[in-house]
Amino acid sequence: MTSSMRLEADYILETYLPPEQAAEIIAGEQSSGTFVAVPGETPALKALAAAKVESLETIATYNAVPALDGRYPTDAAMPLHQVRMTLSWPIATVGTSLPNILATVAGNLFELACVTGLRIVDIRFPPPFFQKYKGPAFGIEGTRKLSGVQTGPMIGTIIKPSVGLTADQTASLVKDLVDGGIDFIKDDELQSDSSVCPFEDRVDRVMRVINEAAGRTGKKTMYAFNLTGDMDEMRRRHDKLVSAGATCLMVSLNSVGMAGFVDLRSFSQLPIHAHRNGWGYLTRHRSLGWSYVAWQKIWRLAGADHMHVNGVDNKFSEDNESVIRSARECLTPISEDKPCLVMPVFSSGQTVRQAHATYEGLQSDDLIVTAGGGIVAHPKGPAAGVQALRDAYQAATSGESLESAAKRSKELKLALEPGA
Amino acid sequence: MTSSMRLEADYILETYLPPEQAAEIIAGEQSSGTFVAVPGETPALKALAAAKVESLETIATYNAVPALDGRYPTDAAMPLHQVRMTLSWPIATVGTSLPNILATVAGNLFELACVTGLRIVDIRFPPPFFQKYKGPAFGIEGTRKLSGVQTGPMIGTIIKPSVGLTADQTASLVKDLVDGGIDFIKDDELQSDSSVCPFEDRVDRVMRVINEAAGRTGKKTMYAFNLTGDMDEMRRRHDKLVSAGATCLMVSLNSVGMAGFVDLRSFSQLPIHAHRNGWGYLTRHRSLGWSYVAWQKIWRLAGADHMHVNGVDNKFSEDNESVIRSARECLTPISEDKPCLVMPVFSSGQTVRQAHATYEGLQSDDLIVTAGGGIVAHPKGPAAGVQALRDAYQAATSGESLESAAKRSKELKLALEPGA
Repeated sequence: MTSSMRLEADYILETYLPPEQAAEIIAGEQSSGTFVAVPGETPALKALAAAKVESLETIATYNAVPALDGRYPTDAAMPLHQVRMTLSWPIATVGTSLPNILATVAGNLFELACVTGLRIVDIRFPPPFFQKYKGPAFGIEGTRKLSGVQTGPMIGTIIKPSVGLTADQTASLVKDLVDGGIDFIKDDELQSDSSVCPFEDRVDRVMRVINEAAGRTGKKTMYAFNLTGDMDEMRRRHDKLVSAGATCLMVSLNSVGMAGFVDLRSFSQLPIHAHRNGWGYLTRHRSLGWSYVAWQKIWRLAGADHMHVNGVDNKFSEDNESVIRSARECLTPISEDKPCLVMPVFSSGQTVRQAHATYEGLQSDDLIVTAGGGIVAHPKGPAAGVQALRDAYQAATSGESLESAAKRSKELKLALEPGA
Repeated sequence: MTSSMRLEADYILETYLPPEQAAEIIAGEQSSGTFVAVPGETPALKALAAAKVESLETIATYNAVPALDGRYPTDAAMPLHQVRMTLSWPIATVGTSLPNILATVAGNLFELACVTGLRIVDIRFPPPFFQKYKGPAFGIEGTRKLSGVQTGPMIGTIIKPSVGLTADQTASLVKDLVDGGIDFIKDDELQSDSSVCPFEDRVDRVMRVINEAAGRTGKKTMYAFNLTGDMDEMRRRHDKLVSAGATCLMVSLNSVGMAGFVDLRSFSQLPIHAHRNGWGYLTRHRSLGWSYVAWQKIWRLAGADHMHVNGVDNKFSEDNESVIRSARECLTPISEDKPCLVMPVFSSGQTVRQAHATYEGLQSDDLIVTAGGGIVAHPKGPAAGVQALRDAYQAATSGESLESAAKRSKELKLALEPGA
């Protein structure tokens, strides 16, 4: 078996055991999977099937209270090792099903007794995964084509309030935004289908506005309708979107899950706007869970076209360095043959003030920025909010300062006033 | 709107803000969803749509280094409040889609800047969810009927090594176990479909053994085949299982996800054995993520028949109290009309030595115990391993000590010998 037929994953492991011993326990759990040698477990079989510790590099050794609870004293410091560990598995025995591979690279290992911290930081797929899974159907190019935004950042918003607006009220807000020349609008992840704002009703009314404007101006605003739900609901809603002339759909990844997502990708005729809500519980402790680098690769391979990355100076807990790293990852090829590039989507407390740092960090204008309050709460209304955000990004990408641009743009100037 | 039409969730929150303020920020994020009042956000709409802080109870106030990273100093102690918080949402605006509800109760809130710790500890669904979702199709009663185990714990095992055995080798191991009178066998979560052990081949060979024995003895061992994969694969594999006469299927919940799982439940003609691998990254930090109480309710409502709960004295990091609490939860009704009771599945390092503590903790014999090495590594082989485990549980449920039972059972005696 060549190494190209092995799946690899990198971890940051913290353990109180000698690292080599801990790594062997983890590799054992994730292949032979039991605590004693069993009759069928011959050396030949082990060589064929076992997970292999490809590398192990000590980062630090220190005394500390373990971050995670376990069957060790958790109220006192103890000697701990932090190591970077790479494991590999032969696909001949673990297969190439993306859902099942999650059980391989991110299954029981997080619970092992010798683990005081474990975080998956990267994954590398061998070629058969790229043959089996399709990656983004639209990606950056397809999104630009459908939205008519050939170059530059895509200026977008999220319908706010997130829930409570009727379909009519939503469409009315959309009309203001579309008239203001917005490129992209999305539902909030809380809004999918409810008695106050039924999905089909929202699609009908919103698309009437968008189609009418497109017929008039030639510009068709891309609206990502949140069809998150059960599979039969998502299928029905997808077909509704296609027949209504919509150009994007949105789905919450942690709600739908991998098997449902792959299925959606198989029948979707529209770009998939992938929302990462719930990401906090997967990542927010530094010694546990998932890094965005590892996590987003799986969803890109599975077919996401747009991936949420939070935003610079967001209202959440993530720092800017992490946000920019995530966004740049979306524009980094997963493989040479199938790069699976996706549009990074900036959101959370976004206003004109973050345009420069966002563009400078990403070093690309392949991005979608979605400002909720940052657009609709503009003193002169949503259309002015769109213009202000566009002018801010125009300034950023052309190397002009925000202050200088504000001298030419009254919308930007207003957006920069205290309290705006 | 009556309170019975609201979805409720309980959290343990840690914050540096006054708790009332933090709770309002969280409720705001999970309903209106932006950082400024926006034009459409009238008081009437807020009353209709907003998440409500139902209760807030301070558990403790202390100085500590925040557990989670954030935009605050994380290397120094600061005054923190730990509170129990209950939020509620009107289903008129958030809907009744289980996948989308995940975005409501467990979406962006974990990432908020004011949150230094957040764990969802319970969920309560209003009646429309019980009308829409089916719960377990088989549950305890259906599982007992299909397996022919009318009373008492179901004695089971996991095929080990987890990966590497061919279909023939698996069937040969199954034959020994079936001849030993085992009630239940499951695939390991690493084993689904691979070139070394293709799913269909494994089903054919294993079911030939099981069907042959059933024809001869009248007892049909229940085998949970791991069909985790893409939706089309799971559908095909399900049909294969039905046509081969199988009586159970297994799926990894965190691999498949909620939408795929609900779909599987809609077409499955077999009990669903729900594996929780990956659970560690959702739960292992005490101030982050999911409690099992909250998490398992969702999957039971969605249709799981068996739920993994780890095991007493397991090889993982979880303590026995937590394991028993999880297991008892599986036997606690979710609602009066639709209790959704499921078989708790004990696993991880299980041997004859845990039978008494397991039964005493659970106070019920409605359980499946799966011992991997604990059965197949018995000095006299798998059949003796089955007998030893059965004798241990028989002793536990009848109030006899292990030592006393071992005097009558040579298999149990051998299993208790040092090194066994």
